[in-house]
Order: sequence, then C-alpha cells, then structure tokens
Amino acid sequence: MNTWGRGIRLSIFGESHGKALGMVVDGLPAGESIDAEALRREMERRAPGRDALSTARRETDAVEILSGIKDGVTTGAPICGLIQNGDARSGDYDARLRPGHADWTALLKYGGHADLRGGGHFSGRLTAPLVFAGALARQTLWRRGIRIYGRIAAIGGVADAKTPRDEAERQSLAGLRIPAFGDAAARMSAAIDAARAAGDSVGGIAEAAAYGVPGGVGDPFFASVESVTASLLFSIPAVKGVEFGDGFRLADLRGSEANDELFIERGAIRSRTNHNGGILGGITNGMPIVVRVACKPTPSIAKAQRTVNPADMTETTLATAGRHDPCVVPRALPVVEAALALGILDCMSAGPPEAQ
Amino acid sequence: MNTWGRGIRLSIFGESHGKALGMVVDGLPAGESIDAEALRREMERRAPGRDALSTARRETDAVEILSGIKDGVTTGAPICGLIQNGDARSGDYDARLRPGHADWTALLKYGGHADLRGGGHFSGRLTAPLVFAGALARQTLWRRGIRIYGRIAAIGGVADAKTPRDEAERQSLAGLRIPAFGDAAARMSAAIDAARAAGDSVGGIAEAAAYGVPGGVGDPFFASVESVTASLLFSIPAVKGVEFGDGFRLADLRGSEANDELFIERGAIRSRTNHNGGILGGITNGMPIVVRVACKPTPSIAKAQRTVNPADMTETTLATAGRHDPCVVPRALPVVEAALALGILDCMSAGPPEAQ
Amino acid sequence: MNTWGRGIRLSIFGESHGKALGMVVDGLPAGESIDAEALRREMERRAPGRDALSTARRETDAVEILSGIKDGVTTGAPICGLIQNGDARSGDYDARLRPGHADWTALLKYGGHADLRGGGHFSGRLTAPLVFAGALARQTLWRRGIRIYGRIAAIGGVADAKTPRDEAERQSLAGLRIPAFGDAAARMSAAIDAARAAGDSVGGIAEAAAYGVPGGVGDPFFASVESVTASLLFSIPAVKGVEFGDGFRLADLRGSEANDELFIERGAIRSRTNHNGGILGGITNGMPIVVRVACKPTPSIAKAQRTVNPADMTETTLATAGRHDPCVVPRALPVVEAALALGILDCMSAGPPEAQ
Amino acid sequence: MNTWGRGIRLSIFGESHGKALGMVVDGLPAGESIDAEALRREMERRAPGRDALSTARRETDAVEILSGIKDGVTTGAPICGLIQNGDARSGDYDARLRPGHADWTALLKYGGHADLRGGGHFSGRLTAPLVFAGALARQTLWRRGIRIYGRIAAIGGVADAKTPRDEAERQSLAGLRIPAFGDAAARMSAAIDAARAAGDSVGGIAEAAAYGVPGGVGDPFFASVESVTASLLFSIPAVKGVEFGDGFRLADLRGSEANDELFIERGAIRSRTNHNGGILGGITNGMPIVVRVACKPTPSIAKAQRTVNPADMTETTLATAGRHDPCVVPRALPVVEAALALGILDCMSAGPPEAQ
Repeated sequence: MNTWGRGIRLSIFGESHGKALGMVVDGLPAGESIDAEALRREMERRAPGRDALSTARRETDAVEILSGIKDGVTTGAPICGLIQNGDARSGDYDARLRPGHADWTALLKYGGHADLRGGGHFSGRLTAPLVFAGALARQTLWRRGIRIYGRIAAIGGVADAKTPRDEAERQSLAGLRIPAFGDAAARMSAAIDAARAAGDSVGGIAEAAAYGVPGGVGDPFFASVESVTASLLFSIPAVKGVEFGDGFRLADLRGSEANDELFIERGAIRSRTNHNGGILGGITNGMPIVVRVACKPTPSIAKAQRTVNPADMTETTLATAGRHDPCVVPRALPVVEAALALGILDCMSAGPPEAQ
Repeated sequence: MNTWGRGIRLSIFGESHGKALGMVVDGLPAGESIDAEALRREMERRAPGRDALSTARRETDAVEILSGIKDGVTTGAPICGLIQNGDARSGDYDARLRPGHADWTALLKYGGHADLRGGGHFSGRLTAPLVFAGALARQTLWRRGIRIYGRIAAIGGVADAKTPRDEAERQSLAGLRIPAFGDAAARMSAAIDAARAAGDSVGGIAEAAAYGVPGGVGDPFFASVESVTASLLFSIPAVKGVEFGDGFRLADLRGSEANDELFIERGAIRSRTNHNGGILGGITNGMPIVVRVACKPTPSIAKAQRTVNPADMTETTLATAGRHDPCVVPRALPVVEAALALGILDCMSAGPPEAQ
Repeated sequence: MNTWGRGIRLSIFGESHGKALGMVVDGLPAGESIDAEALRREMERRAPGRDALSTARRETDAVEILSGIKDGVTTGAPICGLIQNGDARSGDYDARLRPGHADWTALLKYGGHADLRGGGHFSGRLTAPLVFAGALARQTLWRRGIRIYGRIAAIGGVADAKTPRDEAERQSLAGLRIPAFGDAAARMSAAIDAARAAGDSVGGIAEAAAYGVPGGVGDPFFASVESVTASLLFSIPAVKGVEFGDGFRLADLRGSEANDELFIERGAIRSRTNHNGGILGGITNGMPIVVRVACKPTPSIAKAQRTVNPADMTETTLATAGRHDPCVVPRALPVVEAALALGILDCMSAGPPEAQ
Repeated sequence: MNTWGRGIRLSIFGESHGKALGMVVDGLPAGESIDAEALRREMERRAPGRDALSTARRETDAVEILSGIKDGVTTGAPICGLIQNGDARSGDYDARLRPGHADWTALLKYGGHADLRGGGHFSGRLTAPLVFAGALARQTLWRRGIRIYGRIAAIGGVADAKTPRDEAERQSLAGLRIPAFGDAAARMSAAIDAARAAGDSVGGIAEAAAYGVPGGVGDPFFASVESVTASLLFSIPAVKGVEFGDGFRLADLRGSEANDELFIERGAIRSRTNHNGGILGGITNGMPIVVRVACKPTPSIAKAQRTVNPADMTETTLATAGRHDPCVVPRALPVVEAALALGILDCMSAGPPEAQ
C-alpha cells in the first residue's frame, strides 16, 4: 500500500523510468501560505547531480502543483505534486538481479510484471515525492513554532565526534553539503571518494531533530510518535535501522544514567538531559525530538558481484556501470527530515474535539 | 489510538491497576485449532515473578477468552482475551513524576485525568495482551510453516559474542531464561544482579528471527515489512531503537560487503549472506527475517533521582521503592517475538484476489 | 473487520451465546464526566424483554466498564465495556439455515467454523456494544451542545403522517416505547400485534436527528458525514437502506424545490428549508442533521419457510419457535441514534492543528 | 480525507478549474491486461457534452496514465491517472453562494481559502477519477467472472415500471443514453426537457447490479459489503440515499414476504428471491448484488433563488446562467457502477492467508 497517515494522508506513485512520479497529500490546513522557493530548495537538497559526490544523472526534480494550492495558499483540498521524468536512459539496465536491490523481491511479488527499469517503483527517486510532502508539512509546522534540523552523524565508518548541544549548533550546519562538525565533513567526503575510486559505495547515519514540538503530541502504543515516524522512515529504501534519543546506546546504560531528571524552568517542567529524545510513552514532552537512521551503502556498485539471471535461471556476475551515488546519505538526509516533519504533523492532526 | 493493523486488527485496553486488561484481535482465519497450552506458555514467558531476576509482584496473566474461539477452534469472529488484575498494591505509587516514565507526558496530554497508578495504560503490563495476540498469530504462522525464535543479544553492556548461524542454533536457546550462547547468559545475569544490588537497572538488546516466511510478502514503502513491524515494536514501552538485518552496522560497511550475493539452490534463488535480514525493498525474499530492538533500562530504580511534584509544582527527589524489574529484556523478548509474528501475519493478510 | 473509525476507533466483539460481548472505544477526550445512569438508560432502550412488543428472552445488558474510566471520568485511555451473556438457551436453534439470516453467508465465509448459536457474531445482540459506545459519544457531544433525537417514521406499512418541524417536537417523543405522533404509535403497535398473531414479523423506518452540530464538520468525498455515518448504519444487521435529509424523495423533486434557499439570521447564514439534512458536499452546514434507515422485518418467524439443511444438503422447511421480536424497529432506534452520534464525533475528531 | 479503501486504496485530487484532476489507485493485482479502449468508453459515459441532455461544456476527460501500467499491463505499483482541465470558463461563476451546493459548507470549513471556481474540489467533475478507478476495478473483476450493469430506475418522478428479472434483461440496456425499459426512457427524457425549458432540473434513481460475485465476500459489521460500498456511494456529490436489495420497500413487507427462501440448485445453495440484494449479514451469498441510489436534482438552475453573498453578508438572489445539466442521473450512473465495482474489489482484496 502506497498510502500513509491518519491525521494526514500521503500517497506516492511513479516509477524511475515512467512518465512521471508524484504524491498526493491530504489533511493540511487550509489557508497556509506556501513558500514555493523553500519547497524548491528542499527538492534541490535531495536532487542528484549537484556535485561530484552524487550520481551524474541529471534529474529534473521540479514539482508541478496540480491541485490544492491557489495563489500560493492551501485550499484545504488534497495537494497533488507532479515530477516529470526527463532524463531516463533505460539502456543502462538489464535483467540480471542487482544484489541488495528489490529486483529479486519484486520478481517474487509481482511475477515479472513490475517495471524495474531504473529500480522502477522501488527506486530511491520515489523519495522525491516524500521530500515534497515533507517540505509542505515543514512549512505548516514552522508556522506553529516547530523547526527541524538535520545532520550526518557518520559516513563510511567516519563518525562525527561531536554531538550538537543545542539548536544553535544544529542550525550552524544548515546548507552544508555534508552537515558535520569540524573536519568530520572532510573525512566523510574522503571516505566517499575512496569508495568511488574502488568501484564501491558507503553507508552512514543521518540524524534529524525537531525543536518546539509542544508536549502531549502522540499516543501510547500504536500511534506513538516513534511508531508513526518509524513507519515512514522504514519506507525510505536504504534505511535499515531507526533509533530515537540515545537509541541503541541506551541498552548499555544503567537506569540512573538513562533517565532524564526533571526540574522546573520558568514555570514549566523540563528535563536536564534528553536521553529519551523528547518522547516518553509515545508522547512528546516538549524537549527536542531526535531520531537517527542507518542507511545501508548504495547497492549499485561497479565491482563485479555474483548474482542470478532469472530469465534463464543461471548464475552470473554483475558490475553496475550506470550512474550511481557512491553514498546516498547526504541525499537521504532531507528525506529523513521530511519523514520526521510528516510524522509530527500526522500526530498533531488527530484528536478529540476541544470542550466548548 | 490503540488499534493497529491492516490485514489483521488489534486493539488493546486496560490499566495496570484497573479491573482488567485485554485485547481484541480480528482477521485471523476461521478454523484454526488453538493450542491453549502453548498460549499459556507464551504468557508465562512474559509474566513477572518467575524468579529472582524479575519483579516480585505476582501478576495473574491467565487469559480468559471471551469470543472468537469455540471448542478450541477460531470461528472467524474477533477474539477477545481478558486478563484480570488481581495483585495490585496502589499504595506503592505516589504523585511525583517518575523520571524516564510516561507520567510526565500523560500529564501533558490528559491533563491530570489519566489513571497513572502502576503506570496505568502506559504500564509494561499492557504488553501482556500483545503477547497473547502474538501467540495467536504465531500458531497461525506455524501452520503455514513459519517459525519464530528469540534471543538476547546484550544486557547491561554484556554482548553475546556469538551470532546464530542457522535455525538449529536459534532453536537451541529455546526455554532458557536468558537465551544467550555460552557464558554470556551467566554474565548478563551477573550484570542484572549487580544493578539490583546498586539500586539501579540495566537495558539490553532483544532479537527475533522468523524462518519459513515465503518471498513476496509486504509492500514497497509504507507497508514494507519493516514499516509494519517497526510500528508495532516501537509501541513496546521500553523500545527506543529497531534495526533489521545488520541494521546500524550496515552504515559502516561498503556496498560490496553489505550486498547479499545471489545463487541458485534447488531451483530457487537464494542469497549467500543475509545482511538485509530477509527484506529487500520492503518485501520478503525468503531468507530469515531478523530484527533487533534496543530496550532502555527500567526507569523505576531505588536510587534517588531529582524530579518534580506536579501537584504543587515543586522540585523534589524520588527513590522508587516498589517491586520492579532491574532488567526488562528477558520479559520483553516474547513481546518482540509477538510483534514480529503480528507484523508478518498482517503483511500476509492483505492483497489482491487471485485470478481465476 | 470489526474495527471502525478514524478520529475515534471502535472495536466490537462477542457472540450471542458466547461468554460475553463488548466493545473497546478509543479517542474520546480525557476528563469527560460519564453519567452512568444515562448509559444504563440507553442500554435499557435497546434491551429486549421490556414488554409484550419484544422478544421474551431476558438478556442482561448491564455493562461492566473495565478500563478508561476512573471515578466516573474518562482517562483518555481506551474504554472497554463488557456485557456478560447470561440467559442463553442454545437448544432453541438448529442447523437448518434460517432464511433472511446470515447463517448461509457465515457458512460460505467461515466454512462451518462460525459459532452460529443464536446468530453468533451476526446476532442483533452485537448492537448492544454499539449502543454503549454511542451513549458515550452522545455524552461527549452533549457537552459540546449537540443533542440527538430519534423517532419511528413507519412500522409495518403504517407511516407517521407528521414530520417534526423543530427540536421541541422531536423532544416531545422522548421516552415513548414507539416514538411517533398522534395515533400513529397505536396503529404501529397494532401492526406489530397483527404480525405476531400471524406468526410473522414487520419492518419499518427509524429516523435520527442531531441538533447543534457546528458547521464545517466532515470532509468532501470519502469522509463525508454521510459516508462515515452510513458505513456504521449499514453495519446494523437489519438495515438495508440509508437516506439523509429528504433522501429518496429528492429524486422526485425539481431543483427549485430541493434546494435550500439561504438567508441571514442573527449574523449567520441559515437555510429556510433543510431538504439536504444539514449536509452539503459531505460537510455540515449547521442545520439539523437528519438520517433515516430502512429496517427489514425480523427474519425469524413462526411461519414455516422453505430452506436448506447444509449438514446433508437437503431441502427442508423451518418454523422458528424461539423467542424473537416480531418487530426490531423500536429496539433498533437507539442503535441508529448511537451510530449517528459516533459518526458525528468521528468527523469532529480528525483535522489539522490550529494555527498559533 | 480523500483516501478510500482497505484492500485497495484510492486517492482523488483536483479542482474543477485547476490545472488537472486525477486519482491514484493502489492494490490492483499485477499482471492484469488493461483494455484502454474500454477505459475510454467508461470515461465517455460520464463525460458531459455528449448530447442535448447534458451540459454544453465540453470537457476533455482523456486520462493520461502516469504510472503502474506498462505495455498495457498492471505492474503492481500504484496507478496514477491524470485528466487535464482544458475548457474552464471561470467567468461563469461569482461569489454568491449557490443554494444546494457546497459553497456554503466549504466557506464554513475552509474559511474562504477553498478554490470554488466551478465547484472546485466539490465539483461533480471529481467523479471522473472515480469512474476511471472503477473502470480499472471492473476489468479486474471481469477477469474473475464478475459483471456489473447499470440502469436508471427513475428520473424526475418518472419511474421505470419494469424491474429486470435476469442478467440478460440488464444487459439489453447497455449503451442506451437512458437505460430504461419500454417507453420509460422517452418519458424520462421528456421530464428532463420539461425541466430545462422551465429553467429547472430533475433528480432520479440509479441502480447498479453485480453478477457472478462469489459467496463469502465481505465481513459482518463495519466492513460489510453494504458499509464499504455505501461509504463510497455517499461520496458522490448528488447522492442522498442508498439502498441494497429491496431497500426501503422492505420496511413495508412482512418477514414471510421479505425472507429469501433457500433451495438447492446444481449442488449449491441458492435463494428463490433476492430481496436482500445478494448480501446477508454484510457478506455476499452468491446472488446478484443490487444497489440503488437517490440523486438529488442538479442544484444549479436558471430560476432565480434567494441566497446570501458572504463577501458583504447581504441577502440576494441568484439565477445560474452557466452550462449545467438539467439532470445528472445518466452521467451519475457510471459513477455508481464504478463505486460498486470498487466496493466489491476492496472486500475481495482483504483477508487471512490460505492454509498451506
């Protein structure tokens, strides 16, 4: 099912080498002024071909808005955004199953009917509609005082030694191609270059944080902020792990270290630390929400790998010659931020009527 | 929202110190023989008070089935299972917010109306209905050739050095209180004891694996097996991280290391390794599904912690004197297995009609 | 699937002759004082055995609340209400398919595994949980200024000649066993008696109306107030038709007759007539919401009917000797009112966050 | 919310005078050959401007398929169909609220932000995507032996005296502009002409029937075939009533008349009559499914009506001069058939896995 959400509803569609891809998002408030230039900038962050770090394929990620926005303001009707597929060279692909890709499982599920040119509906290109929907959500959140930031915590085994302490430090990374502190960015960049030179690829860890989310958002159990957001994050093709707050590191701590002690600040309850990433019992506590995702390395590599040709059920090898990112993490980061924005907005968009 | 699922539907209800708690599960096939003794055993695995490792509170986790099962066979109607709350000593709890608990966020969301005695609806006790629903799902899966196993990968900083290579190794851990290999179990047990002695608690990592899941289950994007399962796993109160296959370790690998190469075995496509945990593009490939979750340490500890009393908005301290697990991981493991079973069954229970 | 709702979630479970039946409702606001006596009165309206008009079976429709309400106030957690099955004489039923009942389709769907004693999960008794959920919703709506009324428009071919002109007229029918104007109630009662005397049954039309619903509730298309409410109304076993406003009579009118002309009353836009039943384009306009449902006559009758015994696939006859209502309309009316309450509350419980 | 369905998912988007409108449908089986010419014919049935009976506006209802179909075969990925808005003359519309339209409720809900040119997102033009989705569903059903037919039962107070007895009689109406028996079509056409001449409009009753639906489809209660289908039918702008089988006429019958007696035909259980319209307890019984909807007369009429101008909150009058159908029933009929097809397919597309 390619529909997500409860308070808001998001549908995505399209294939990598089809006519067009896009999304329909429903449930945004009416009367929101949309900053088209900010939307374009978000799309640009995910778009390939910006520099030597990413794939040479030059996609046109310009979004044409077909409905739901009139004179730059949301109408309350569903918003459809369309992205034409311009520069698709299907000749780059063949029938052999690419290891690490969905070619194999698409074959199992759709029995040869899937359009797998360029990864088809499974392509990372389908994250473009996610970024667009997230950018819309982000503007809606921004107007309610909620700011979202992203950073790269690790690439190719190179971890950023510094963890941002506050919003200002997160903001200081804005606009960087690899938003990491100190020399970490340069070392991550070197790791990507080394992988490319070796005909190989690297993965990494992307982090997003939301400031200004009011307390009391989310539900216990199935509609916890974690459940809702993770269901979207695990939709991103490369993501194989998701953690909130200190995540897996909490497994090594003692309770006295992991608990966030409480105090009173200007009449409000606050916690001194934020090991729980702003969420307790599935519900926000007003502290920053922090989420990290593990991205696996790009499966398409120039190195030869053993695989199978399902056409004649023979074993063979495959060295992917196409235009591929040696590292998707910088381009995945805006997708992760988009998912966090959508997760928060979805949780804020459902609930009982206020007493009158 | 306390309802989960698409192909199947699960509702849970109840509070820790209320009359009863339970679940309604809908969408199981009619005509399934239910092994009541196996259900009871699963409930027993999660129940507290079994030994010195867990809380001294003796809950009665006996489930009374009110509907949907007749003469030991599912009828196709929704199954309601009820667990009476017997041994609740509310005197153990007071108004001070327990750091690391949902007391704070429940206050923010429900404005003082939540029943927070014993953690109320946020209590880990609510995982009992999850285990029951999972045990039903498990029997349905078993009949279709799908077996689920659990193990503890780490507790309190003690990691199991061994990773199971095959189903037999996973099966060898069945029935162990701490299902870990070699001396890891004893060392984990010692870590728990040390934490208890210090008035503290420890967290850990639980792992579940499913064998025999056919290829082609799940959907790309929002209903990926990862998305569906993670949304349930993040409903478990202590869980702060979820990873599939090699998860966060994939972030450090190169593509040539992370990709699972393919070959042909007895006429079927298989992969030599399983770094992707049996899922590619959100869809199963027939390899074992592997998922790991990070459990934070039990928030309730005997050590004094700084906190707030919201009744008079004063800062204070709290040392939890109640009966609490110093480590929830052994009891969380059957919950994780239940979530995996429900996630897989849900993905198998939706789809287009077969052509005729 | 036995789960309904978007803004609120309702699950029902149970079989007519099982241990118990009940419901779980989630999404009601926290902090609502629940009037237990009013709940009891609503349950009593639907309960059988009150007088000679209905079945002689004396069910105990007392609801035990297991969760979600503490000291008479909603906690925000899901509310489970349980109704024990006391007086079930399964001996009254046999294997022959009862014409007009779901016995046949249950056999087709569940292949003999369904518990069909007393109608099983298909029994009209399952409307008791609906009434309970609706009574909860009703109290929540009442606190927001919304009042719901019911009347019987026709029974056994006897139509009430009068259509209520305003709220006071609707209110004047409250508490009547057959809420109809003038001598219509007596004539309807006579039609029921005549049917019973003939070993037969009659159907009828129940109407519910909601006053005080604010304008702007509902969505165009799939979550229209009509769509949401009708999906619940068509869940009621006997209902075969649903119409809003003037409904099917609109098919015979001209546009100039059917349109509701607008004017200004105390600064607000109002319509002079209400042919559209308070809903335009799926969204409320502030006028009373009016809905009518057609109930088919009780399928269980004493007259012999031709049918099939699926045990040996023989044709046979069946004369139902059990305790059955010759007319379900008076007991269906509170179910219809409950469905309308739930439909409105569901539509009011979903939407984007307010701008701040 | 503009998303519908459980087993399949349908999203629609667009406004009457926006750039384009369309739909995304997800959950159709992969590998279905799509007959593009049959799709085009279905769209043509709903399209305006075909003859003197309907509006003079010439819309281009050609659907461009953007995804999910490759070489005429479904791929399993979501299908997006786009309809460009060509011939929109916004000058025909002004700010005065059109009685009977959603202008008023859109104002209440969206506070002046809705794009109401030509009815905007509330326009009957949004039924074009529904017809397209239904035409896709219909081809999927056809391949599984299910045939859907439509007829007009009444227009402007002229009822068709004949009720079709079998599939052949329903089929005999195919292709007629007003599919009614004998001279009914001519009399209905005259009623439309008379209304147009009077600057007025008429409503009517459309009926759809499905043959070949297997028994056992649907669920009791909330996912009954009636609930699922009605939720979609009540999304159609003009629909104010829905009935299955004999519907409201059942309210006047006795049980002995309304029950469908059973017998055995070629080894299968069948009913002699079909008062219940092929559905008992929400589940199909293998008999034809029959549904009827009441369409209100077109609200846009040339006659002057009293209304309100919300811009200055004054009372005024309005005589709609635009191009409007005096009767939408012939064009609504394919929409009703589409909704029935989607309802059935949705119910067939959810369920537990088969035992193996």
